[in-house]
Amino acid sequence: MRVLGIDPGLRNLGWGVIEAEGSRMSHIANGVCQSDSSEDLAKRLLSLHEQLSDVFASFQPDTAAIEQTFVNKDAVGTLKLGQARGVALLVPAQFGVSVGEYAPNKVKKTVVGVGHAAKQQVDHMVKMQLPGVAINGPDAADALAIAICHAHYARGPGFGTGAGMRIKEVRA
Amino acid sequence: MRVLGIDPGLRNLGWGVIEAEGSRMSHIANGVCQSDSSEDLAKRLLSLHEQLSDVFASFQPDTAAIEQTFVNKDAVGTLKLGQARGVALLVPAQFGVSVGEYAPNKVKKTVVGVGHAAKQQVDHMVKMQLPGVAINGPDAADALAIAICHAHYARGPGFGTGAGMRIKEVRA
Repeated sequence: MRVLGIDPGLRNLGWGVIEAEGSRMSHIANGVCQSDSSEDLAKRLLSLHEQLSDVFASFQPDTAAIEQTFVNKDAVGTLKLGQARGVALLVPAQFGVSVGEYAPNKVKKTVVGVGHAAKQQVDHMVKMQLPGVAINGPDAADALAIAICHAHYARGPGFGTGAGMRIKEVRA
Repeated sequence: MRVLGIDPGLRNLGWGVIEAEGSRMSHIANGVCQSDSSEDLAKRLLSLHEQLSDVFASFQPDTAAIEQTFVNKDAVGTLKLGQARGVALLVPAQFGVSVGEYAPNKVKKTVVGVGHAAKQQVDHMVKMQLPGVAINGPDAADALAIAICHAHYARGPGFGTGAGMRIKEVRA
């Protein structure tokens, strides 16, 4: 099963693709889609849409997962993130791929074992579970952690048959 | 010049198309793209994207405008609206159409003459300026008001040449 994780953001949208076979995971690719803050918002969203669509077309994931967004930051930041997140959710739907959503603490608890793990611990465990991975910055690291988390919950029996239902169950 | 106005929302996304020739405006079409709140968020965004793309394909607007979003409401609501707004901004960019953004008070001030006009006043003035229009509910009425506002600012000299620059200037 090929899993794509997404860490949404307007300036930097991290993504990571892993292959999961039972409990064994391997790294396929990771990166960051970026938009130029000097551009109009619509053009930035178009650019993110094109870049993320290319990732889906290139790596053909079977399922995707996205971080649930903190909404306790400033409202302007929440709106910006929401706009990027809308595009990040649209792309998998356009490719017919289900999207799991996980709270940041759920991702940390699954990958590290504790919900309030430091960023370095998450990075460390991502590298442990994906031997030889070269990570393209913090947003790509978060995206790989989300993919690992999703692979963990999604590999239960019955996943892939009625995946939409299953995603609802695993939503953190 | 054909202008499409958008009032973004996740459940109801209002749209309205007008034709503007100098100061004369006429109604072309208006409606509401809707998404089913019992569906997954990604599917709802996909549905809105398809519906709004159909509107662009059917009515071929030369330019579009969207309401600037209030961000002083609850954070969860801001995030939801942001996600729908991301899709609403993406579609015109995909069709190569520039998007103006106007604050709600700017729209009211342009259409009615005062920034804190009641909803009924806005409706009344939209009907006055678009004789014979049948409006498909309040979200479509807002979208038509946004289109009228944009037509007012966009019809200045030079619009259409370097439209991206012009949009920046008229942003409220």
